[in-house]
Amino acid sequence: MSNRKLSFIPGPIEFSSEVLKEMSTPSQTHTSPEFTAAFQEALKNTRKLFQSSDPDTQGFVISGSGTLGWDLTGANLLNNGERALVISTGFFSDQFGSCLKLYAGSQNVDILKAKEFGSTVEPSAIENILRAAKHEGKPYTLITVTQTDTSSGVLSDVEKISAIVKKSSPETLIIVDAVCATACENLEFDKWGIDYALTASQKAIGVPPGLSISFASSRAIKKILAKEHAIGFFTDLKRWLPIMRGYENGKPLYFATPAVQLIHAYNESLKEILTPSITEYIAAHRVASDNFKNKIAKLGLKFVPKSDKISAHGLSVIYYPDGINGPDLLSNVQEKGFVIASGIYKKYSNKYFRVGHMGISAVGSRKHELDKCFEAIKSSLDELGYKN
Amino acid sequence: MSNRKLSFIPGPIEFSSEVLKEMSTPSQTHTSPEFTAAFQEALKNTRKLFQSSDPDTQGFVISGSGTLGWDLTGANLLNNGERALVISTGFFSDQFGSCLKLYAGSQNVDILKAKEFGSTVEPSAIENILRAAKHEGKPYTLITVTQTDTSSGVLSDVEKISAIVKKSSPETLIIVDAVCATACENLEFDKWGIDYALTASQKAIGVPPGLSISFASSRAIKKILAKEHAIGFFTDLKRWLPIMRGYENGKPLYFATPAVQLIHAYNESLKEILTPSITEYIAAHRVASDNFKNKIAKLGLKFVPKSDKISAHGLSVIYYPDGINGPDLLSNVQEKGFVIASGIYKKYSNKYFRVGHMGISAVGSRKHELDKCFEAIKSSLDELGYKN
Repeated sequence: MSNRKLSFIPGPIEFSSEVLKEMSTPSQTHTSPEFTAAFQEALKNTRKLFQSSDPDTQGFVISGSGTLGWDLTGANLLNNGERALVISTGFFSDQFGSCLKLYAGSQNVDILKAKEFGSTVEPSAIENILRAAKHEGKPYTLITVTQTDTSSGVLSDVEKISAIVKKSSPETLIIVDAVCATACENLEFDKWGIDYALTASQKAIGVPPGLSISFASSRAIKKILAKEHAIGFFTDLKRWLPIMRGYENGKPLYFATPAVQLIHAYNESLKEILTPSITEYIAAHRVASDNFKNKIAKLGLKFVPKSDKISAHGLSVIYYPDGINGPDLLSNVQEKGFVIASGIYKKYSNKYFRVGHMGISAVGSRKHELDKCFEAIKSSLDELGYKN
Repeated sequence: MSNRKLSFIPGPIEFSSEVLKEMSTPSQTHTSPEFTAAFQEALKNTRKLFQSSDPDTQGFVISGSGTLGWDLTGANLLNNGERALVISTGFFSDQFGSCLKLYAGSQNVDILKAKEFGSTVEPSAIENILRAAKHEGKPYTLITVTQTDTSSGVLSDVEKISAIVKKSSPETLIIVDAVCATACENLEFDKWGIDYALTASQKAIGVPPGLSISFASSRAIKKILAKEHAIGFFTDLKRWLPIMRGYENGKPLYFATPAVQLIHAYNESLKEILTPSITEYIAAHRVASDNFKNKIAKLGLKFVPKSDKISAHGLSVIYYPDGINGPDLLSNVQEKGFVIASGIYKKYSNKYFRVGHMGISAVGSRKHELDKCFEAIKSSLDELGYKN
């Protein structure tokens, strides 16, 4: 065991040794049977990750980061002049909106923000704005929901929002930013009627950063295929669609060189996630999160999310207690071997910190590390003179 | 030693064990001192890779593939309605043109093609078209040159073309697609007056696929900063510029999560490439290429590039001799442990094959593997009944 500090930020998380081993797979050509088999298996298992059994959906695994998923949405599912509704619970939701404005035009993207930092957007507000848009004869082409906004730790109820959209504006495509939610929050892609979910490799998926992973419904694919004027080349899912379908059917095709080693690592991590099942993996995150949050609450600390019900399970977002200097706490915890993250939302940034609890060090073979991380936070608070 | 087949396609190439070891670096947060130091060193050494000492240039290392570099060019250096001239020596040059059409408008991108497959574009033709555009009062905003077109193995003389541009249309930005050229062909970024060079990790740079690496002149940066309406978010170099400058100065900043492990691998490979110097590394590729091509020529085989002078040094592109079935040759060589590539240009695809000779298995500690690859090709031809 080295003196390496463990990552308890909300991604990149800690990686299993098996995943890291796959990262150093000796060179394989992108059309080799070995790589094709791995990519095929990974694409098939991506369906399980999103709990989809509809054969007309499609997973996309592309070199990039979570951010690229926003562009994939804008470039493929939104024509200039079409309207988008962004449900915002923090920094990352807002950024998704900023990205979409480039594609639809600023005036066509409405950002419906939570009333205060740490709260969700009221379902009734979503229903009202969707209905008003229909009433004006300009329904929203798509709505975006950031399932977990990593800046606030707020969990949005994707199932409920989806039901509202289906009822009040059924033609609106439902887009879920699941970057910090995939594999640690429930997302039933087919059942809830999601059209496009986007995520990244380095959070609960447990793979080093470098992959944009997304999943499209048959309705989203129709829109992708119908788009006549592509905005970009690398971001054009119409170009990627035959490639992904090809690899998933065991036939390598070329558009851009895939990240062979990262895809091997992704394939390995999916096997770990899916054993025994995605449902159990997600449930384990709920348990780990509840335990951690209970212990934090017992210390007398307050959370940014206003209630348990809207608290994400992949991370905890916690206000510094009165009298505790943020940077002092973070560096004290770091000296004990654990890296936790500062805040990231406007004027609140200096008021709270964030602890990620996803993957191997929260629910896997190294889950004792999360307990140790908690102990480090607790004793750091003690040392800094905090009294509960 | 396993029975693994060695990659002698023109990328992904073989990787050194030190580079592969960096790929499995245990998790580090993207703002950690360890990662920041590695990214800083990699960005500094990227300057040496492009032989640039001008402090106003900037390297960009972004999750993606070589293809992304085309979009970075279109999204940042070309406004809709501005004109681009694409010098085409094969499939990859043409694709670059197709990408730029999305950004400038189809009618604004002129593709000046080599007269025949395997030849370059005449300097006089380039000069004439540049002058004509200026005469019309609509000079080209940029020109693209694919230094090595991996589909044909044709090497374009970037130094000469650059001099022509400087003389006949000095306002035109000079863009070099160096994907299969960086680190195996000479490119003197400052001295030749290049404005933007784009490359990828998996060719002569010797790092697994997943990184788009590019380099911009101060003139290109001015254009990037002056652009008012960004086309994309992830592809907007104005957003990446402070990030790259930050890391290069040792200050981590966030836009999108960087590919920590790939960047460590890139940093390691750069050290290998730059020891003792980029010039010697490039010269070694010329020697390896000349040796390999001489041996192929002695077998009586013909090359796609019309002359030695316009032959790339990172790969050899060779016509199948009469009477030899292409797929038979490739599979026969593969059974001997070496993967070589088929053709990739329209009606010629079935007429030729491609052998990559870059990095460790061509000029590094495992360069004997290229000799063995040649022997495998030779004996496969024998077995298939080829007579010189």
